[in-house]
Amino acid sequence: MTWEKGDFLYEGKAKKVWKTGDPKVYIIEYKDHLTAFNAEKKATLEGKGRLNNEISAYLLAHLAARGVPTHFVERIDERHQAVRAVTIIPLEVVVRNVTTGSLCKRLGVEEGMELPRPLLELYLKDDALGDPLVTDDHALLFGWATEEELATLKAITLEVNDLLRALFRDLSIVLVDFKLEFGRTAEGDLVLADEISPDTCRFWDLATGDRLDKDRFRKDLGDVLGAYREIWRRLSTREA
Amino acid sequence: MTWEKGDFLYEGKAKKVWKTGDPKVYIIEYKDHLTAFNAEKKATLEGKGRLNNEISAYLLAHLAARGVPTHFVERIDERHQAVRAVTIIPLEVVVRNVTTGSLCKRLGVEEGMELPRPLLELYLKDDALGDPLVTDDHALLFGWATEEELATLKAITLEVNDLLRALFRDLSIVLVDFKLEFGRTAEGDLVLADEISPDTCRFWDLATGDRLDKDRFRKDLGDVLGAYREIWRRLSTREA
Ligand SMILES: Nc1ncnc2c1ncn2[C@@H]1O[C@H](COP(=O)(O)OP(=O)(O)OP(=O)(O)O)[C@@H](O)[C@H]1O
Ligand SMILES: Nc1ncnc2c1ncn2[C@@H]1O[C@H](COP(=O)(O)OP(=O)(O)OP(=O)(O)O)[C@@H](O)[C@H]1O
Ligand SMILES: [Mg+2]
Ligand SMILES: [Mg+2]
Repeated sequence: MTWEKGDFLYEGKAKKVWKTGDPKVYIIEYKDHLTAFNAEKKATLEGKGRLNNEISAYLLAHLAARGVPTHFVERIDERHQAVRAVTIIPLEVVVRNVTTGSLCKRLGVEEGMELPRPLLELYLKDDALGDPLVTDDHALLFGWATEEELATLKAITLEVNDLLRALFRDLSIVLVDFKLEFGRTAEGDLVLADEISPDTCRFWDLATGDRLDKDRFRKDLGDVLGAYREIWRRLSTREA
Repeated sequence: MTWEKGDFLYEGKAKKVWKTGDPKVYIIEYKDHLTAFNAEKKATLEGKGRLNNEISAYLLAHLAARGVPTHFVERIDERHQAVRAVTIIPLEVVVRNVTTGSLCKRLGVEEGMELPRPLLELYLKDDALGDPLVTDDHALLFGWATEEELATLKAITLEVNDLLRALFRDLSIVLVDFKLEFGRTAEGDLVLADEISPDTCRFWDLATGDRLDKDRFRKDLGDVLGAYREIWRRLSTREA
């Protein structure tokens, strides 16, 4: 099946979303734009969109093949993938295996500590508010998710963490932390949506400790695109 | 029994703490200092310490008489009370019955909404970090409280909320929200500690909506001391 772009739906910082002839399917276009610190820092990196499309399609397909409900339908071409149309739940679900980033800054905890178990956090998807941390009770009381949705998305998130950690460990990469988004389909299914890429994960090279993700951009470490390319090289040459 | 001040222990923004001859008992001295916004705004209000000592002693005794484990031993004089010596758990436990303040600012939710059930939040007691919101998992993983402590302090907090709401409703006052602190005694008991006063609660007059608490200071509404005096007047003339 080939999908054709229909009505333009919306544009975010990293992707554009289009309708298709099938009301159940959207097209996502991966852009070359890169933003950090709630879009205070911006850049365009030629080739980033293509790499994230490849990486995200690969990882979503990997998870789907192992029973994780995802929005992924198929990779269309270099920049595009077809996904199930969903209403996004306005929570960013973050998992941390190693302490770093905003966690250490906010709570004064040590950098680079391996956590005894994965730490799951919820952030309200609201750029104007700076995506604040929220608790389960905030989400329930203010109607951002139901009790059942929270339970399901947490269970899926921990399963995704297990699967991706194992996948990346085999590629000599530590999955430090990552952010997921979930959505509801018209049929009422809760599925993993959005993207999984070096824009939304922290990857540390197991041998060298090199940052292979958007932290290279946040911290001006140089060769951002090279890191994304390295992630895609290891994934695409992986023996499944 | 009379308690005598021994070694000086520490001074906070609103109180001083002293040892006594009994290692199980401390003396708390209530100061006239008032601070807000993480001590960016400061004032001295003559008589505030005395009023908070009276109010806090009254409320802690009220709760203790109804089975809540507290640090309260006795009111000593105008400015002092004897309390059980505890190691403070580094979490501020906040309960909200009506939305207002930092909650609305952080999460963009409407002001003055009555919540369908009390909202309990934990904040890390760390002035340098600005007392950040934390989740149960943060507290557990970073060792700020144990699972058993969290369960106990939550149960006590909800019980305190029920008891205080009923008490203040009879005085035509809405208990909007408040902050509690808990501590561990040398014997290992978890008890309600610190203070309960217009510095740590939001009280709204049921009939007029008037603020009868530290928000008068935060928002420059005038006659701060008059509000504290009104709380004490209603409490002290209450028919028990
Ligand atoms: N399957 C899907 N159906 C509908 N919308 C989706 C789907 N997958 C992702 N989206 C949404 O597409 C939008 C564009 O993605 P992009 O990553 O560019 O947004 P963003 O700038 O990060 O903004 P946001 O803070 O909303 O994520 C996002 O709001 C994302 O939640
Ligand atoms: N029973 C107790 N035993 C030991 N310490 C106590 C007890 N009750 C309260 N405290 C502590 O006494 C200190 C002084 O109180 P005060 O309210 O002035 O502090 P503060 O400036 O608000 O600082 P903090 O942010 O630590 O509460 C606080 O750290 C408080 O936690
Ligand atoms: Mg996004
Ligand atoms: Mg205090």
